[in-house]
Amino acid sequence: MISIGVIGYGYWGPNIVRNLRGLDECQVAAVCDQSPAALRRVAQTYPDLPVTANPSELLSSAEIDAVAVVTPVCTHFELAKAALENGKHVFIEKPFTSTTRQAEELIELAERKNLTIMVDHTFLFTGAVRKIRELIEEGALGDLYYYDSTRVNLGLFQHDVSVLWDLAPHDLSIMDFLIQAKPEAVIATGEAHLNGLVDVAFITVYFPRNVIAHVNVNWLSPVKVRTTLIGGEKKMLVWNDLEADEKIKVYDKGVQMNNGPGLYELLVSYRSGDMWAPRVEQTEALKAELGYFLECVTTGQTPFNDGVAGSRVVKMLEAADQSLRERGRAVRL
Amino acid sequence: MISIGVIGYGYWGPNIVRNLRGLDECQVAAVCDQSPAALRRVAQTYPDLPVTANPSELLSSAEIDAVAVVTPVCTHFELAKAALENGKHVFIEKPFTSTTRQAEELIELAERKNLTIMVDHTFLFTGAVRKIRELIEEGALGDLYYYDSTRVNLGLFQHDVSVLWDLAPHDLSIMDFLIQAKPEAVIATGEAHLNGLVDVAFITVYFPRNVIAHVNVNWLSPVKVRTTLIGGEKKMLVWNDLEADEKIKVYDKGVQMNNGPGLYELLVSYRSGDMWAPRVEQTEALKAELGYFLECVTTGQTPFNDGVAGSRVVKMLEAADQSLRERGRAVRL
Amino acid sequence: MISIGVIGYGYWGPNIVRNLRGLDECQVAAVCDQSPAALRRVAQTYPDLPVTANPSELLSSAEIDAVAVVTPVCTHFELAKAALENGKHVFIEKPFTSTTRQAEELIELAERKNLTIMVDHTFLFTGAVRKIRELIEEGALGDLYYYDSTRVNLGLFQHDVSVLWDLAPHDLSIMDFLIQAKPEAVIATGEAHLNGLVDVAFITVYFPRNVIAHVNVNWLSPVKVRTTLIGGEKKMLVWNDLEADEKIKVYDKGVQMNNGPGLYELLVSYRSGDMWAPRVEQTEALKAELGYFLECVTTGQTPFNDGVAGSRVVKMLEAADQSLRERGRAVRL
Amino acid sequence: MISIGVIGYGYWGPNIVRNLRGLDECQVAAVCDQSPAALRRVAQTYPDLPVTANPSELLSSAEIDAVAVVTPVCTHFELAKAALENGKHVFIEKPFTSTTRQAEELIELAERKNLTIMVDHTFLFTGAVRKIRELIEEGALGDLYYYDSTRVNLGLFQHDVSVLWDLAPHDLSIMDFLIQAKPEAVIATGEAHLNGLVDVAFITVYFPRNVIAHVNVNWLSPVKVRTTLIGGEKKMLVWNDLEADEKIKVYDKGVQMNNGPGLYELLVSYRSGDMWAPRVEQTEALKAELGYFLECVTTGQTPFNDGVAGSRVVKMLEAADQSLRERGRAVRL
Repeated sequence: MISIGVIGYGYWGPNIVRNLRGLDECQVAAVCDQSPAALRRVAQTYPDLPVTANPSELLSSAEIDAVAVVTPVCTHFELAKAALENGKHVFIEKPFTSTTRQAEELIELAERKNLTIMVDHTFLFTGAVRKIRELIEEGALGDLYYYDSTRVNLGLFQHDVSVLWDLAPHDLSIMDFLIQAKPEAVIATGEAHLNGLVDVAFITVYFPRNVIAHVNVNWLSPVKVRTTLIGGEKKMLVWNDLEADEKIKVYDKGVQMNNGPGLYELLVSYRSGDMWAPRVEQTEALKAELGYFLECVTTGQTPFNDGVAGSRVVKMLEAADQSLRERGRAVRL
Repeated sequence: MISIGVIGYGYWGPNIVRNLRGLDECQVAAVCDQSPAALRRVAQTYPDLPVTANPSELLSSAEIDAVAVVTPVCTHFELAKAALENGKHVFIEKPFTSTTRQAEELIELAERKNLTIMVDHTFLFTGAVRKIRELIEEGALGDLYYYDSTRVNLGLFQHDVSVLWDLAPHDLSIMDFLIQAKPEAVIATGEAHLNGLVDVAFITVYFPRNVIAHVNVNWLSPVKVRTTLIGGEKKMLVWNDLEADEKIKVYDKGVQMNNGPGLYELLVSYRSGDMWAPRVEQTEALKAELGYFLECVTTGQTPFNDGVAGSRVVKMLEAADQSLRERGRAVRL
Repeated sequence: MISIGVIGYGYWGPNIVRNLRGLDECQVAAVCDQSPAALRRVAQTYPDLPVTANPSELLSSAEIDAVAVVTPVCTHFELAKAALENGKHVFIEKPFTSTTRQAEELIELAERKNLTIMVDHTFLFTGAVRKIRELIEEGALGDLYYYDSTRVNLGLFQHDVSVLWDLAPHDLSIMDFLIQAKPEAVIATGEAHLNGLVDVAFITVYFPRNVIAHVNVNWLSPVKVRTTLIGGEKKMLVWNDLEADEKIKVYDKGVQMNNGPGLYELLVSYRSGDMWAPRVEQTEALKAELGYFLECVTTGQTPFNDGVAGSRVVKMLEAADQSLRERGRAVRL
Repeated sequence: MISIGVIGYGYWGPNIVRNLRGLDECQVAAVCDQSPAALRRVAQTYPDLPVTANPSELLSSAEIDAVAVVTPVCTHFELAKAALENGKHVFIEKPFTSTTRQAEELIELAERKNLTIMVDHTFLFTGAVRKIRELIEEGALGDLYYYDSTRVNLGLFQHDVSVLWDLAPHDLSIMDFLIQAKPEAVIATGEAHLNGLVDVAFITVYFPRNVIAHVNVNWLSPVKVRTTLIGGEKKMLVWNDLEADEKIKVYDKGVQMNNGPGLYELLVSYRSGDMWAPRVEQTEALKAELGYFLECVTTGQTPFNDGVAGSRVVKMLEAADQSLRERGRAVRL
């Protein structure tokens, strides 16, 4: 039985606590938050759960094996470092850290202490992303051409990070998981309109072999969109995460270039066949992910969404930030 | 009665001829195309219409007042120049020319000869774009924040121009018409996958006063999308050109920043009210545009979609091309 | 402080308990269910809540002021009757009873005892239905022409009642609330395919002044549909309850008949204007309804969704059953 | 080469003429219409085509082999009868005739004269209906449960026939083609609101083996809907004719009833798998149908959409009319 302390009970923390309490392999030891209102909410829902406003209590407790860090990004490094130094495994919110340097320090520390870091890229545990990965791995799409994601809605404006660091980590981690290649360069553009933080941004990531990825994030959209197009040589797909059913539609569509009779003549032929919406697993992704965390802690296996994976996303965010500040200059990775 | 010769009877030419024949103020004098098959199609539909494979016949004919140039971009300059030199008004397909330099030469020539150039940016004559312009002009949206357009579908691959020059002229001309400001810089990214021409591209255009525009064009999308989001301080709108009715939806939604009680504290408040889909005029845009061309030729007034407007679009395309080649370097305009 | 006992903790009961516990004006005294598993679920979520498998305990308890009956229809009459006889107010699931006769007996009993009966027609408390009623009352739609509702999905098959008694009560109660007229006749058709209970059914209700209502209910549909069209002389609306936003769309569309020049000639003119999606209150309907129940109990006012309203729905269901059995014979009301 | 005369050049006639002229196996001999404006439209589009206001000219011409009757229903019988008596094959608009008796007389006459009658049920030649028929024939859906079609929009009000005779023939002919069984009884309800003709109607058709069909037709709907649900034992499908692509979606969904451990206990299990949208042929249905007519005339084979098929639809319409007049009384067929 793994004992876990949860630090942070704001927007996402309650989901972590609820799911952990539903798992037999662990118990929630205590919840920490600096806000008295948050602690009252804990007490109301779980009268039996110890609460504290002081993270050190959890971090130094001998009875706690692991810590879930569900706080603003700027606090991640300090909290995770303290947890690791105290011998605790760490489950931590995305984005992993504020800088690549911080990420590397944590990775190195965990390795030395033989501890597990898992970065909460929840989408990687959804039925939809799992199914797309499966389709790519089995070659159904053929060579990838592009990955193009739109993730826009009205708000929620963050006070500390831009829309880049708020929304794009989802797309960057999914892209990293699906494309499975080392990005070459990042170009980002964007603009701030209200509180000085960028609220509309567009990121391009160049990959080897002509694969291009693009992410459109926006806090000022009147409509909510969560749509990703993925184009491949053999098939193409659309993933609309707002669809109740039929989240993924796979199109038997494509283009073929042939040499025509003339010397420089290209014949383009289009293929347009059936569309197919595979059934997608509907279980709660966060539950699966936390179960996987417990399994990794128990067995010592390295999770695929470990600190290194989290660090790759932070590196792309840093590059995007820099590119955006320099109006689109390509930042090599 | 204005007499018009039409050069080019491929994909778009038949629409030009059909609409011109429906207008009382003009007559189609002749149609020119190099392809015998195209000329046969003309003869079949309009047995009375003279055809020729030689553009010079039209360009030098004393009976022709104006010429519609509906040919591939690379031929625009030569044909338009010859037409102007022969004293003929010019209605010309988008994009106006292959280079800004060509555009400027044609503009200067037309001015000297006192002739009209109109660039066929058909979308500017649709009920939807007219209505959006009206909403912006009357201040319904407030200060503009962003313009974000997605124009993707499968094919049609062009043999001579990339997806940038094929699809983006629509968006760039609409953006130019709606934002009514001088763009500052263009950043473009993209990739070629099949015939060496870029088939997926993303363009950002920075405007003064924090207005940012973005265009997503793609020939390799399994689904057709024609959606533009426009965000303003007071209202936001979505224009979906594929909707039969309700092409434009105006959202009474917004975000407001207020100073909170603390020194650096920002209070964000969201406004979410009614949605409204104004009725949009359904008449054929090309017919209205051609009628306007005849009117400009007759009265001598300068069309708003003249060579200068066409040149602004070409300038952005050139900049986008250059930026894309240099992997996102911002090209100042 | 009103003390309430809840009988039935299956599919809907948990929502009743959760909402009652969120209301300051009452306390949940105890929960009753015959299933030990259900009682375990209560204990898990609310360790402080007394449970029992015996409804008599609640019905005879001197400390309980009111009872919520959230059990299968066939048990409604016995439980409600016992509650009223014991001097308790009754909040009861739809449909109110299995027969009109039962409904009338309960109404009469409540009246004699001066107790409140409220039938849980939750939809009448949604922002959408409230807004439609408002539009009708203020005359925005003009004279009503028709009400046409489709409520179909896969399952959930009930073991005791047909799709008519399961899904149609929603539509019949909404229709009763919106049309506000006495129905004249009911015609129903339908078919049973699996367990002997009708799983596909179509109901027509004739109202005075040429108003016609139609309900399409189906347990065997591959897709979920919750759409109602309401046609009026001045405007028409579509209510799609599955839309996250924009549940109601009001169309400024209509048809007008004028006498033409000839004796028998009718000129039809169509009007097609803007569409408008009014913002709809998003609060939980059941919470509002339970608050209203407590208010009615406290003040003694008669709820608009009282036993009489519930009885009107039961009467239509009975008539529909009879009509369906007799293959569409019109049953007068 | 078959020579065809076309009688009626209103809404649908131009499509008949255009398609016939595109077929090599026939020539259009002449077009007849009583309206001078209609004849002017013919002359404008086809200067070479003889026109007349007098149908007798066509009907008695020795050079004409077949006649297409594209006039209002009330004129069908007289025109078709005269054509057959003059030895001409007949292609005739839906609905075939105003009464079953008329239909039978024409069928008998054609048989005696050894002539072909084809009723224009165009939908039977669309890729969508063909594909659905294929799916049913190969057993993909299993035993059919229901057929439920909604065909509503604003107008076009007819002056001579109700919405039943205007819109329902489409559904009734498709249903006849797909279900391939003899209907047992028809129940219809509906109402007239404007010009005395029923503008909203609902038809139920009972078939053997518990198959039930339902048609919802409405001239007073603010939105256009063309959706049919078909439920089968093994699979279910939705046909949305307004979708550009993906007109048909086949759902691997179903319900199974098993006996539970107890005597009377039924266990319901739901199956929910992939969705699949087969590619649907996009060729123009009317062209295929007219080609088939020419083939039948040439070879003498009896078309599947012959007078007998047309008569079955008329019989259901008559029954629906009668049922509607008697407020839903089931009319046996």
